Amino acid sequence: MAGVNRYRADLRDHRFVLFEQFKLGDILGKGIYEAWGPDEVDSILKEAYRFSCDVTGPLCASADREGCKLENGKVMTPHGFHEAWGRLYEAGFKALGVSPDHGGSGAPACVQLLVEEMLSGSNTAFNMYPGLAFGAGELIAETGTDDQKHRFVENMITGKWGGTMCLTEAHAGSDVGATRATARKQPDGRYKIKGTKVFISCGEHDLAENIIHMVLARIEGAPPGTKGLSLFIIPKYRITPDGRSEGSNDVTCTSIEHKMGINGSATCVLNFGDNDDCVGELCGGVEHQGMAQMFRMMNGARIAVGVQGIGLMGTAYLNALDYARERKQGASIERWKDPTAPRVPIIQHADVRRMLLEMKAKVEGTRALGVKLAMHTDQKKIETDPDKAAYHQGQVEVLTPLIKAYGSDQAFRVCELAIQVLGGVGYCQDFPVEQYCRDAKIFSIYEGTNHIQAMDLVGRKLGMAGGAHLQAFVGDVAAFVSKHQGDPDFGTAIQTLDEAQAAVLGGAMMMMGWSGSGKLSLIPLAANRYLEMMAELAVGWLLLEQAVIAREAASKLEASHPDRAFYEGKRHAALYFARNILPGVAFKGKLLAAEDTSATDIAVESFATL
Amino acid sequence: MAGVNRYRADLRDHRFVLFEQFKLGDILGKGIYEAWGPDEVDSILKEAYRFSCDVTGPLCASADREGCKLENGKVMTPHGFHEAWGRLYEAGFKALGVSPDHGGSGAPACVQLLVEEMLSGSNTAFNMYPGLAFGAGELIAETGTDDQKHRFVENMITGKWGGTMCLTEAHAGSDVGATRATARKQPDGRYKIKGTKVFISCGEHDLAENIIHMVLARIEGAPPGTKGLSLFIIPKYRITPDGRSEGSNDVTCTSIEHKMGINGSATCVLNFGDNDDCVGELCGGVEHQGMAQMFRMMNGARIAVGVQGIGLMGTAYLNALDYARERKQGASIERWKDPTAPRVPIIQHADVRRMLLEMKAKVEGTRALGVKLAMHTDQKKIETDPDKAAYHQGQVEVLTPLIKAYGSDQAFRVCELAIQVLGGVGYCQDFPVEQYCRDAKIFSIYEGTNHIQAMDLVGRKLGMAGGAHLQAFVGDVAAFVSKHQGDPDFGTAIQTLDEAQAAVLGGAMMMMGWSGSGKLSLIPLAANRYLEMMAELAVGWLLLEQAVIAREAASKLEASHPDRAFYEGKRHAALYFARNILPGVAFKGKLLAAEDTSATDIAVESFATL
Repeated sequence: MAGVNRYRADLRDHRFVLFEQFKLGDILGKGIYEAWGPDEVDSILKEAYRFSCDVTGPLCASADREGCKLENGKVMTPHGFHEAWGRLYEAGFKALGVSPDHGGSGAPACVQLLVEEMLSGSNTAFNMYPGLAFGAGELIAETGTDDQKHRFVENMITGKWGGTMCLTEAHAGSDVGATRATARKQPDGRYKIKGTKVFISCGEHDLAENIIHMVLARIEGAPPGTKGLSLFIIPKYRITPDGRSEGSNDVTCTSIEHKMGINGSATCVLNFGDNDDCVGELCGGVEHQGMAQMFRMMNGARIAVGVQGIGLMGTAYLNALDYARERKQGASIERWKDPTAPRVPIIQHADVRRMLLEMKAKVEGTRALGVKLAMHTDQKKIETDPDKAAYHQGQVEVLTPLIKAYGSDQAFRVCELAIQVLGGVGYCQDFPVEQYCRDAKIFSIYEGTNHIQAMDLVGRKLGMAGGAHLQAFVGDVAAFVSKHQGDPDFGTAIQTLDEAQAAVLGGAMMMMGWSGSGKLSLIPLAANRYLEMMAELAVGWLLLEQAVIAREAASKLEASHPDRAFYEGKRHAALYFARNILPGVAFKGKLLAAEDTSATDIAVESFATL
Repeated sequence: MAGVNRYRADLRDHRFVLFEQFKLGDILGKGIYEAWGPDEVDSILKEAYRFSCDVTGPLCASADREGCKLENGKVMTPHGFHEAWGRLYEAGFKALGVSPDHGGSGAPACVQLLVEEMLSGSNTAFNMYPGLAFGAGELIAETGTDDQKHRFVENMITGKWGGTMCLTEAHAGSDVGATRATARKQPDGRYKIKGTKVFISCGEHDLAENIIHMVLARIEGAPPGTKGLSLFIIPKYRITPDGRSEGSNDVTCTSIEHKMGINGSATCVLNFGDNDDCVGELCGGVEHQGMAQMFRMMNGARIAVGVQGIGLMGTAYLNALDYARERKQGASIERWKDPTAPRVPIIQHADVRRMLLEMKAKVEGTRALGVKLAMHTDQKKIETDPDKAAYHQGQVEVLTPLIKAYGSDQAFRVCELAIQVLGGVGYCQDFPVEQYCRDAKIFSIYEGTNHIQAMDLVGRKLGMAGGAHLQAFVGDVAAFVSKHQGDPDFGTAIQTLDEAQAAVLGGAMMMMGWSGSGKLSLIPLAANRYLEMMAELAVGWLLLEQAVIAREAASKLEASHPDRAFYEGKRHAALYFARNILPGVAFKGKLLAAEDTSATDIAVESFATL
């Protein structure tokens, strides 16, 4: 089999998650989703898949090899990106989830999420440019003044202008509060900005007429730390009163990074105000609210990183599956000693199947977790009961760090397994999986490292609303457990789920106890493990829910119906996860309880003597 | 801090493992090791470290970026490799472990292993060329005729000629028995070879005057499968009777692979006999013994892959440690709410320390496992009691798949953690860790995938000699447990070790039960997990042994002695592993006992409906 490099998605699973698991049909055709029915959803998914296969997917490998080039302060993106950018906005995918008030299609967030899975999965690097433009536009739509919304948002949603988020500085990565960029108020109410931002994704490029930078800086005299930061809108080219881009705004790209992956995405060092001529306007006209404002974009970006993970692990899995079905090697286990036995496709070998089923369970479970999060967003929008709306918002809060961290960690694991399934060719650039693996490694780092996600979960989200969000989450799992315990097919798995649920609740109690008893320093040591426990609980639950739904659906089909095989797959994925990964939740709970402090006990000089 | 790209090793740990843990001093100065004393060992380690820092290390990144070039059938290796090759052989490192009979220095294998750790860790790609030349030379030394030994070995050990191992064909990767390369006997007793080999590491290059290919092929009329394979010595250039290389031997490099990593190592497609003019000689003059002969080289190569893993994870850990000590970010946890608090080195943050200690434990534990294996080789050589010699050989058999698979898997994990410790800069090429991660990914695939290692362990090694090797291994652990149970510092950890030991023994019994009760198909599903259990047991044991030794040694030192910090580190690494990883052995034993068959139950068409 010759090397192939193609994007792959499983639309049947998309439809299953949307309509069979999360009952999207119940909210379509009503209220703000009046224009959307199942056929519209189906057709947009198909279009997005076709676009991903035909337009962005074919540029994935070539953009990786070519990379971006910086010449005289201008970044040239890889061959084909400019045309793809035009076609993307022509097709309207980026306006999908935007409210019709801003010229969008008003699709449910869960539909938008699956479209993003495909756009991003087919070409992670490319999709960062429109992704950041969208996020920055949305940030202005949510926090800007009416005048700012009017001047910026539409151009940023329609691809006329790009956008960025500028937080990081050389000495302020995870520690955003150490930001040194400054803003000095001018007589006209605008600000002169001075500072250098690093690791700015898509900070400079040739795809759009202008780039709108959303920049955190400290107004002169503001307090230190995050509380003194304000958010500024800083266009690359100044905007004339009639909305044209004209004249430099003293923003310079001085270098781009050479990276392990996402080479088509320009990661820039940006200097603001080298010539003291960089002008920004205060977003929303309010001072010292920068962190709170930026968090709106960051929350979206964190979910988007989880979706990047789902996208890459999805196509990595399906590429490995394609290969395993076609590649012949070795005899079947029954005849392994017979050298004349026919060679079989490697999917016949137990270990290859084990790897594929692990990938399938993780991909489909993480996808379900992402769609669940988006469905809570959708439900919250249409919910009239404030308690129920608060419940949905609470789940969004709790699930955001889970999808970001678990989605990114597992994307790397699944891509690694894809390489292993392909073997030697998986390590070569003829097949896409080695690139997927390289591209995926950044997900655990940017938009807040996965430890920051874990601290967000245990330090902020668990305690929010008096712990109500965690209780609601665990309560939903418990309701599922009590409904299905003793199930003939899944009883043992449900029992494991119940133990996992108890461990997650118990872990939260334990950490609360630490806070109250002078053991606060145990919490950062425990946070990553706790996040993983909770994510595995969520994924195990959602996979078992899928299995129960699939069993019911299959029972209504004739034996020859092609969906029966699909539904059967749900059973095996759920059982695999329940037997191999879910038991790890309670196990990890026991490790937490051991309160190991070796990592903080060890002296710095004891790590190595050199 | 500017980007740095430097090789790092911890010679204090090397000396600790050799002399304090494995008592190398006891065998030095006697018999075949008469010429070697502690000072000689120490000085060769220092020399190898200096060489790795000064000669091979500085070429690591540049060779990765430059890669190899194929033009008109000739491979050009990266800039600097030719000079490094010359200096390597001048320094005598490759002759270190070679018997003085073949012009070598006769150093113990455990010393050679640590020298290889440094050579390989400083530049994985470069070290493959001399590594394969050495392995191929050793193969002839062990299995060739006297005449072949005389003509080939010295030139291959001294760097005049290179060498390769040619097993894989496009349709015969893991399935070596499917080899199609043929050999036709000529009237002069030599053979005409025809066939194409793929993924041949260092199959063609410009570093040596000739390259000696060790090739598996099937003599016409031989049976199918591995039993019909013979081993041929096929020089790139024919050898004249007086030992000069002269005239082509019809071996052509038709392409080289573009890979995720080890870009300085040419991975070649080699055509033998395109013009029906490729002549090989039968190694050792015996037919149909090719697999058995090649396994000698493969066993060495498998250990060498484990050592490649130790090399990369070692330098990845120390590079992350250097960074974490110097890079300032954020305030200490006690003052995290105070934006005016001084910024601290990130090693002060709990999660960074947790990652570093996990890396340290894995690096030092896997290194100890490698040295233990080599020490069994050394002991076997000098042992006069045949039972004890058989014990040592048995441990080599059992530990070989462990070091290959665990060393490679953990190398990738540790490199991944190194990237995470560095954060955004870890993803960039200014620091070496992203390359380490890319280079390391191949280790789990080549020289027999890690599943093949796992099947070698459970299908061959456990049952060898009636299970004696496993029993001896577990018995050694049990003796340590019984000696130290109830220890005031390590009692709980020793208890965990005991449970792990029971789980490993229990797992072996369980698999034996499966073989006898028609559940044979469970074994390949369980094999990888079982190998990991046994490797973790071994590493946990060796780390605890180190901790006990270190405690004793520290008690004899003044409080201000610099070694005290080193010894303290041993305690924390052992406790971290015992509390966070070792409990997983018994846990995984329970997962095995669940006899999950979901991966073999699922139908091929149920993986995805596309």
